[in-house]
Amino acid sequence: MRNRKRLSSVSDTQHHLNSPFTVEWNHQLFNTDSAFDVGGAFSEVCNALSPVKVLPVIDKGVHQSHPELVQRMEKWSQSTNTNCCDPLIIEGGEASKNNFTTIELILESIHKEHLCRKSCVLAIGGGAALDVIGFAASIAHRGIPLVRMPTTTLSACDSGLGVKNGINYFGKKNFIGVFDPPFAVINDFSFLSTLDDRHWRSGLSEAVKVALIKDKNLFDDIESQSKQLIAREIDVAKRIILHSAELHLLHITTGGDPFEKHESRPLDFGHWSAHKLEPLTDFTLTHGEAVSIGLALDVTISKLLGFLNEQTHARILSLLKALHLPTSHPALANPELVNGLEEFREHIGGKLTLLMIEGIGTPREIHELDSTTLRQAIEELM
Amino acid sequence: MRNRKRLSSVSDTQHHLNSPFTVEWNHQLFNTDSAFDVGGAFSEVCNALSPVKVLPVIDKGVHQSHPELVQRMEKWSQSTNTNCCDPLIIEGGEASKNNFTTIELILESIHKEHLCRKSCVLAIGGGAALDVIGFAASIAHRGIPLVRMPTTTLSACDSGLGVKNGINYFGKKNFIGVFDPPFAVINDFSFLSTLDDRHWRSGLSEAVKVALIKDKNLFDDIESQSKQLIAREIDVAKRIILHSAELHLLHITTGGDPFEKHESRPLDFGHWSAHKLEPLTDFTLTHGEAVSIGLALDVTISKLLGFLNEQTHARILSLLKALHLPTSHPALANPELVNGLEEFREHIGGKLTLLMIEGIGTPREIHELDSTTLRQAIEELM
Repeated sequence: MRNRKRLSSVSDTQHHLNSPFTVEWNHQLFNTDSAFDVGGAFSEVCNALSPVKVLPVIDKGVHQSHPELVQRMEKWSQSTNTNCCDPLIIEGGEASKNNFTTIELILESIHKEHLCRKSCVLAIGGGAALDVIGFAASIAHRGIPLVRMPTTTLSACDSGLGVKNGINYFGKKNFIGVFDPPFAVINDFSFLSTLDDRHWRSGLSEAVKVALIKDKNLFDDIESQSKQLIAREIDVAKRIILHSAELHLLHITTGGDPFEKHESRPLDFGHWSAHKLEPLTDFTLTHGEAVSIGLALDVTISKLLGFLNEQTHARILSLLKALHLPTSHPALANPELVNGLEEFREHIGGKLTLLMIEGIGTPREIHELDSTTLRQAIEELM
Repeated sequence: MRNRKRLSSVSDTQHHLNSPFTVEWNHQLFNTDSAFDVGGAFSEVCNALSPVKVLPVIDKGVHQSHPELVQRMEKWSQSTNTNCCDPLIIEGGEASKNNFTTIELILESIHKEHLCRKSCVLAIGGGAALDVIGFAASIAHRGIPLVRMPTTTLSACDSGLGVKNGINYFGKKNFIGVFDPPFAVINDFSFLSTLDDRHWRSGLSEAVKVALIKDKNLFDDIESQSKQLIAREIDVAKRIILHSAELHLLHITTGGDPFEKHESRPLDFGHWSAHKLEPLTDFTLTHGEAVSIGLALDVTISKLLGFLNEQTHARILSLLKALHLPTSHPALANPELVNGLEEFREHIGGKLTLLMIEGIGTPREIHELDSTTLRQAIEELM
């Protein structure tokens, strides 16, 4: 055995052996309009992965909006001679994250189809479906490679690029889950065409978020193209989603803390309140809308703390409004909102760490937030 | 953002961004007789980890055999001023791995005690309990640091050092689980004193296993000390358990495939049939006994394939017998045993890879096993 380190002695009362090691991962994003063309993105992924079998798991909403999808996949699997199981259709949306039912359905399919660790689960859906499917794939045989195809602006911009998954439990968002990088993420923009306007806009809040903490150029681009984004001009949307997805992916791979072992979680800017606003409104707010309100709250706090000037604050709120995204909600006044701060701390662990901004693209951490400032920020938005 | 790689263009039909990254882990083993002494192994671990809270989860059998344990822990937590929750006592043994009941109990405790990702789950028990507790800790908040205290020769030699966890599902051993290195493993030899003779001996099969594939010196040591091991001479047992544990730990950290992304799994020598013999005998065989039979089978196959000479084969079987470990069982004749080969392949994925040996400490991989040789090996052992 190479590099073998023997313990010095076995006669002392206590011995200690310490052996650091690293695990190598890869994170990759494909952007396309036609993932299932022969020679297209999914072919490329399968060439690299050589899966024994592919199990497609599809969000029911996507399956209904894209009736041609299953046929397209069948044609692809025949042309490429890939062993592709019948797709499993699951409920999507946040409700699918609230119990083990969907997880068990997927695990049962993996069991019955005899998927092995050299097979592949292909997850097609919005952020919630990707979270549920990803968790099932991560725990079956201690991890079957996952390929994600996000089908909403939100998951294409943001959550589809994450290296985590999970479900809600005991009423706590994402209480159960693991860190596990997907084998690949394929953003196929053809899925976005069937989104309703509300969900189309909703995900843009995550692009604004990553721009606010990382990239003023992206903010400027979104701001100058807000009308085109609302009008769903696809080339503009592609550019902005791609830019946002890329910032997310590279934050994970080059940010120094891919599995979030430290307290700081910059990509969660605006999210401590968003995660609480969703259950407080019985999920009548979409995640993206809750994030938009959460961003409005945190930039207002940033202003009240003297970090952000009034002009920039106004500019950010104007952009959210120009994108037809909400910046306030009666639920902000719910006294339970403040519990979100403690739940956020508990979920990440250690001391409270929140991100504020000093300017567009310039983040700043804080470790406490007094209730007067918080109340004042909420009042300003109401 | 440092190291930022922009996509070359957004106007082509397909784009690809590829970004490798590594995650750093550490694997450490403490060996002691008194983990809860102030300044002892658990104090050292807590000094390094600074957990917000500690939740001890204890195998019921250990709790009953060591009635002073909880009091010792309380004294320790008072002396060290550590925030230690009331211990949760769970059923141990393979039965606890057959459903979600115990997992949910542990998750509920984590939820109610408000454990965060900077807290610590302290798992005290045999291999099955450690698997269940470890899985619950790995999926709560996407991973709460785990400290394992193996309490059997088997888990102290072998499974307690692993970087995996899990439960059985759909009748498949370890169908659900994840790879997740513990923060630390503490082998406290004082736990071994209350094991019954059968379980004491049982775990020695894993020490024989790792010796067979990695270290002739360890084999010689076990062989020359077999009487002392059976007589439970603790200093001899400590040396051999420590040597075995060390070989396991260093295989994981320096063997090049800690999360088993490849097909080869040398530490599973003798295990393909062992994993099948356990359910085929309704778990009347302990895991260690099943491993002993599995070793006897695989060294016999190694002999029949012409890899291993008769003399060495006889020597290995003699050692297992000298340790009062079984080398045969009527269940070997069950035609279902052969399905174990396919289930093993499916669990690991890809092509079948089994380890055989050419001599003590000299492994050799094979990728097929004809049924005639297998039947002949079984007949020889019956």
